[in-house]
Amino acid sequence: MELTHINENGRARMVDISTKDETNRVAIAQGIIRMQPETLQTIKTGGIKKGDVLGVAQVAGIMGAKQTAFIVPMCHPVMLTSVDIEFEYVDQESAIIARAIAKTSGKTGVEMEAIMAVSTALITIYDMCKAIDRWMVVSDIQLVEKAGGKSGHVIRGKENQ
Amino acid sequence: MELTHINENGRARMVDISTKDETNRVAIAQGIIRMQPETLQTIKTGGIKKGDVLGVAQVAGIMGAKQTAFIVPMCHPVMLTSVDIEFEYVDQESAIIARAIAKTSGKTGVEMEAIMAVSTALITIYDMCKAIDRWMVVSDIQLVEKAGGKSGHVIRGKENQ
Amino acid sequence: MELTHINENGRARMVDISTKDETNRVAIAQGIIRMQPETLQTIKTGGIKKGDVLGVAQVAGIMGAKQTAFIVPMCHPVMLTSVDIEFEYVDQESAIIARAIAKTSGKTGVEMEAIMAVSTALITIYDMCKAIDRWMVVSDIQLVEKAGGKSGHVIRGKENQ
Amino acid sequence: MELTHINENGRARMVDISTKDETNRVAIAQGIIRMQPETLQTIKTGGIKKGDVLGVAQVAGIMGAKQTAFIVPMCHPVMLTSVDIEFEYVDQESAIIARAIAKTSGKTGVEMEAIMAVSTALITIYDMCKAIDRWMVVSDIQLVEKAGGKSGHVIRGKENQ
Amino acid sequence: MELTHINENGRARMVDISTKDETNRVAIAQGIIRMQPETLQTIKTGGIKKGDVLGVAQVAGIMGAKQTAFIVPMCHPVMLTSVDIEFEYVDQESAIIARAIAKTSGKTGVEMEAIMAVSTALITIYDMCKAIDRWMVVSDIQLVEKAGGKSGHVIRGKENQ
Amino acid sequence: MELTHINENGRARMVDISTKDETNRVAIAQGIIRMQPETLQTIKTGGIKKGDVLGVAQVAGIMGAKQTAFIVPMCHPVMLTSVDIEFEYVDQESAIIARAIAKTSGKTGVEMEAIMAVSTALITIYDMCKAIDRWMVVSDIQLVEKAGGKSGHVIRGKENQ
Repeated sequence: MELTHINENGRARMVDISTKDETNRVAIAQGIIRMQPETLQTIKTGGIKKGDVLGVAQVAGIMGAKQTAFIVPMCHPVMLTSVDIEFEYVDQESAIIARAIAKTSGKTGVEMEAIMAVSTALITIYDMCKAIDRWMVVSDIQLVEKAGGKSGHVIRGKENQ
Repeated sequence: MELTHINENGRARMVDISTKDETNRVAIAQGIIRMQPETLQTIKTGGIKKGDVLGVAQVAGIMGAKQTAFIVPMCHPVMLTSVDIEFEYVDQESAIIARAIAKTSGKTGVEMEAIMAVSTALITIYDMCKAIDRWMVVSDIQLVEKAGGKSGHVIRGKENQ
Repeated sequence: MELTHINENGRARMVDISTKDETNRVAIAQGIIRMQPETLQTIKTGGIKKGDVLGVAQVAGIMGAKQTAFIVPMCHPVMLTSVDIEFEYVDQESAIIARAIAKTSGKTGVEMEAIMAVSTALITIYDMCKAIDRWMVVSDIQLVEKAGGKSGHVIRGKENQ
Repeated sequence: MELTHINENGRARMVDISTKDETNRVAIAQGIIRMQPETLQTIKTGGIKKGDVLGVAQVAGIMGAKQTAFIVPMCHPVMLTSVDIEFEYVDQESAIIARAIAKTSGKTGVEMEAIMAVSTALITIYDMCKAIDRWMVVSDIQLVEKAGGKSGHVIRGKENQ
Repeated sequence: MELTHINENGRARMVDISTKDETNRVAIAQGIIRMQPETLQTIKTGGIKKGDVLGVAQVAGIMGAKQTAFIVPMCHPVMLTSVDIEFEYVDQESAIIARAIAKTSGKTGVEMEAIMAVSTALITIYDMCKAIDRWMVVSDIQLVEKAGGKSGHVIRGKENQ
Repeated sequence: MELTHINENGRARMVDISTKDETNRVAIAQGIIRMQPETLQTIKTGGIKKGDVLGVAQVAGIMGAKQTAFIVPMCHPVMLTSVDIEFEYVDQESAIIARAIAKTSGKTGVEMEAIMAVSTALITIYDMCKAIDRWMVVSDIQLVEKAGGKSGHVIRGKENQ
């Protein structure tokens, strides 16, 4: 196995994608943040307008996706054509799942953008609630599905891992 | 319980810290990335220079910490006086732990900066290895310890949670 | 009258504030966006959750305030200690007013940060509604009040202009 | 009327443009800053080199246009192929008009980039002159004309509003 | 000779490239940093892991290349498809050469991105070693070669200068 | 000699300055860009307004100085209290010298900010003139003088090097 991000001197490089085709690409990623039951309750009902914490997390995640190439050193800049995030309350685990979809039409995939959207959204939830629950934990940030490009359409759990 | 980041209209605000004291503040956060055993092996031995993936992740994490206030919407800008990251191989779990320490002298804590360092470092490891292992999972991003400011010195597991 | 931002060669400089005192500083700015009555109605009732456009504008404005020194060339970096924005519907004018308050404790004022918060919030409202009303107009972006520093507490309309 | 930036959960999203055509797109926006007559006079003659305030505002506006997708949360990144700004003195109103043109070849328009150029340029003029005239007012930031894409060539005042 | 970056009012503009062809473009730039012999020796052997200073400089240079359009005012945003940097020790001059290659497929060249990679890498070496050698000098930052676009393939020293 | 930016694992860190004193600090840096005599002549007289290339370079340099901690990985964020740049035509060498001064009141020096101002200004000159002179060379970027902090007031050439 070879790390394509490492050049012949053992140093990092931005992989050369100049000869790759421009295709439509999609990636879906998700993650979860676990918290005290009271915290989840406060997020659901807190403030005058319900769910505002998630509204801020949504904006943060979408803006974070656009910053991917400036945060992850070897990422190529990509022209995102769509980013959306949905949140799901998991009451029995006292947790919130964030799931992000990113799209582009270009020479490289958008896995990192989807992952960056998820991690930024979850960290923002942490930030907005840490005053009442500083031990919240962000977990299971992972690629769920991707399509487009050489590797085709792959779904987590549907191929040998 | 009240969300201090939400104003009286139910919208987000940057909490007013103008009357807080300037004190020395420290925060430690950590997280883990789990992968295939072959991936861990490649990280350890891959390329000419050992551990280069972690070298890039380290730089990414430190630079990510400096970007915190531009990524997490309600974070205050802080003058970081120190950021360091250490990595630990966890062979039996086929995983790498990242642990970051952040310091400042100011009116607000640096939990978010430490968490941002950890999540950026781990996501960067994912990015550099995803060509050989796209199903890696980032988990357990959490505050470990903090000191300075009103809440004093708190350590994960050493107080009621 | 002398432009302090212009040096002896007639070129721009970042004014030297190194000998100024650190004091608490506050600035309030406001502006307005005018639109079709239907647009205002859609903002008020549109989507499942009321006022979401303003929720996004609020986050944008706060994050925009933190970017001030990177957008306005001669602005000093400042450590914002608080930013908040409120919106007011002006039905008879079919308009929304945005009013922002910014605070810091430092050597220079935060007028630009308050103005940047207002203009970013209003432009974001435009962006989110331009598909239904492309001729909306942003106006009357102005400083309303400031306190702290050499010029003391000044209020628009309460001094010779 | 439907807000395309709001998803089915009532939260903001980056609109999906992945199936839109790449076409040449142009947008023109303008705005005005009103000031004391003495301030306008100082801008015209101040410093050794005439008009330097406007030179800085021009650079700020062009750089601001490039930052649009990082300031306005739901904006798509676009590959600007041209940005230019012109200023016009309006002596009878003691004001300066800024007019910006932005171009791209892509899947989405550049209205926001033109508007961002104008607002950044005008706010920069305010910043550079606020030491002598803190009550300057920025107004009438608006789209003037756009071409390219589904809505075709539209000019302010030439269609039903 | 005419400066294409200057508009008819004598002010800067982002040159209009909207009618140019999209072609593959490559640029190579280089520069050198001169230092005390002991400094070069420390870089070569310093720390536990050899060459770590250059590892950080490499990451900095690649990330700096991606920031070009936000640092150099009139640069167009470009979608870099590849960036790599190599370092060469020049023992007899007690110096290190950095050489960067940048690629894109687009309407404008990537000279500035290659130059930004080189200068950022060299300045980073300075930063990491300035505690032991504050008088290091960065020199000879220059374009070495470029291909693609109207001017074709040009090599330094192979055409009239 | 020990590289303070390298931690005990041989990886980069942001040096801990939390126990250092806040003092006034100044740094002066300079560099030069060499070009064809015709290019220098065009810069001096080109366009309608003299010296506009240098006006843009000045703004770029000042804004670049504010970006230092986001470009140079291990730099601490600093609150710049002043940045200014001056240019000097060197006709006999067909060159332009840029000299920048940066100031802060804080725990760490501003050498990197002064160097970043110089290199950004010179690279901007290159960018604006490369259409007429692509082989221009940027050289001799160096610290000239610094004051404040533990090392006191040092001037290039006035101490053992």
